[in-house]
Amino acid sequence: MIETPYLLFLGDAPDSLAAKVAQGIKDWRPENAVGQLRLPGCGADLGLTDMTLAEGQAAGARTLVIGVANRGGVISQAWKDVLIEALRMGYDLASGLHNLMREERDLVAAAQMHGGTLHDVRVPTVWYPIANGKKRRGKRCLAVGTDCSVGKMYTAMSMDAEMRARGMKSTFRATGQTGILVTGHGVPLDAVIADFMAGSVEYLTPDNDDDHWDHIEGQGSLFHVSYSGVTMALIHGGQPDALILAHEPTRTHMRGLPDYALPSLEVLRDTALPLARVANPACQVTGISVNTQHMAEDAARAYLDEVETRMGLPATDPYRFGAGKLVDALAAL
Amino acid sequence: MIETPYLLFLGDAPDSLAAKVAQGIKDWRPENAVGQLRLPGCGADLGLTDMTLAEGQAAGARTLVIGVANRGGVISQAWKDVLIEALRMGYDLASGLHNLMREERDLVAAAQMHGGTLHDVRVPTVWYPIANGKKRRGKRCLAVGTDCSVGKMYTAMSMDAEMRARGMKSTFRATGQTGILVTGHGVPLDAVIADFMAGSVEYLTPDNDDDHWDHIEGQGSLFHVSYSGVTMALIHGGQPDALILAHEPTRTHMRGLPDYALPSLEVLRDTALPLARVANPACQVTGISVNTQHMAEDAARAYLDEVETRMGLPATDPYRFGAGKLVDALAAL
Repeated sequence: MIETPYLLFLGDAPDSLAAKVAQGIKDWRPENAVGQLRLPGCGADLGLTDMTLAEGQAAGARTLVIGVANRGGVISQAWKDVLIEALRMGYDLASGLHNLMREERDLVAAAQMHGGTLHDVRVPTVWYPIANGKKRRGKRCLAVGTDCSVGKMYTAMSMDAEMRARGMKSTFRATGQTGILVTGHGVPLDAVIADFMAGSVEYLTPDNDDDHWDHIEGQGSLFHVSYSGVTMALIHGGQPDALILAHEPTRTHMRGLPDYALPSLEVLRDTALPLARVANPACQVTGISVNTQHMAEDAARAYLDEVETRMGLPATDPYRFGAGKLVDALAAL
Repeated sequence: MIETPYLLFLGDAPDSLAAKVAQGIKDWRPENAVGQLRLPGCGADLGLTDMTLAEGQAAGARTLVIGVANRGGVISQAWKDVLIEALRMGYDLASGLHNLMREERDLVAAAQMHGGTLHDVRVPTVWYPIANGKKRRGKRCLAVGTDCSVGKMYTAMSMDAEMRARGMKSTFRATGQTGILVTGHGVPLDAVIADFMAGSVEYLTPDNDDDHWDHIEGQGSLFHVSYSGVTMALIHGGQPDALILAHEPTRTHMRGLPDYALPSLEVLRDTALPLARVANPACQVTGISVNTQHMAEDAARAYLDEVETRMGLPATDPYRFGAGKLVDALAAL
């Protein structure tokens, strides 16, 4: 569990694209971000108040979050000066960098001296159990994609936000580094040891109130040969009551696999649902989430209408048009 | 790659059940085992020549293999005395114990001093790539089970042995600790990091001659919620040309999951084949391997006849009745 709220460190990021993690925190948990800290030459700007470490602390920040990618595969001395000063002042640090803070001796030494915690969210810090498959109380929803990176995280976050806005009981359950940094906790599933993947998802989504929904962040795709095992573990460890089919209609092949075509939504449905019913015989496919970012609004709406008619399921782009339809379908279950 | 041949260390194993790994080596690679080394009180006996370390070395042994489970979760001093003496004499050590040799300071020190290698086969020593899904040359066969522990490894080993006896080009590809110790190499798939599972299987089964068969050791089951992700990675990383359905007819529920029933062979076929065709559109289900160890011979033969008729596929217990039928089907592909 990462202590909130955060001061978002943007470093010397060349542009806002490099600050995707920080942007995700600002978009989905603005209450977690008291401000941004930028170094000279930083080209990224989240539109938050620029703060020094002292100003961030005065505003209540408990953790300095590295919300940008670093350059050249090393944590630069300019960054380290800030990070070590933050530790000295009593901040914890959280990072999704490939370079682990725990492998940097000066950061480790400063953390030990000042009692701060280094959260490298790419690596698990828990010994997860092997999945036991026992039925858990509460409801769970999982988005499964025709491909990787089609908007599964945004779908889950949108549905969670919509449910909470309606006063429903709902939790977003992060399984990737961005989601973990946004919410302060979760399981870095792609870094879990094979035998414990499904168990880590059970751990992430424990017993809950009967009317509580977990929105589990999806990963990979059953049809993406590099990562399908991770998706399978989410389907069986998560024992979802509801599946959302996620799709990006303009993609011409599977991400990173030029020789692999995307499956149709029908094939995705007919593959994922029987597998999900192994762990939860009551599971249903309840909606379709389409990432329409590369389509004009008219084309996007026409596509959604067509899909809705063809599949007989509510279809929307939850980020662009709201998650209301998808939540309606869960509320009606 | 573990240097062969081996001297098999049986320690103070109470009985032969505790020496399963050593038994597997003796059954499947007798040419790899020059003899057995037993401590006072050892109740296990493989029927191999009892040897001292010096006699094993004189017989050509290069590696002392710990072929038994240890007791109480520690490597005892009595064992260590032998292991350290073996290192001093120039042996390498190989172990599938949960206790890692590399975490025992005295073993590490002795290995460094004498230039020996400690092979802890439960943990990966390679940085595997992320799977790229590219079509590889050569043929691959994978057994998929209705459950875990239904005989997938013995099926693969039997088919490999039968092919080699026929002069066909064939390799058994180990994905578990016993298989790795038997053959001297492989991937400990259940200990690989999630994102690299399928890539490790691609690494294990590289391009080969067009008429060469890899027999990939299966793991888990698509229907076993604890381990299904590992099975999925084998199906996509292995891109098999042929699937063998593996089954144990007397089992009343999924191993370790009392509330989960086994799927039928038909459901297994209809689930696994479409998933396999994502990575290899030419994949076919070519046979059925039944573990009949808990059935009388008459009942076993009757069951196999019934399954063969019902499924329209050759069915056998390869360990009991030979793998000929299964290999015939691959040869006819």
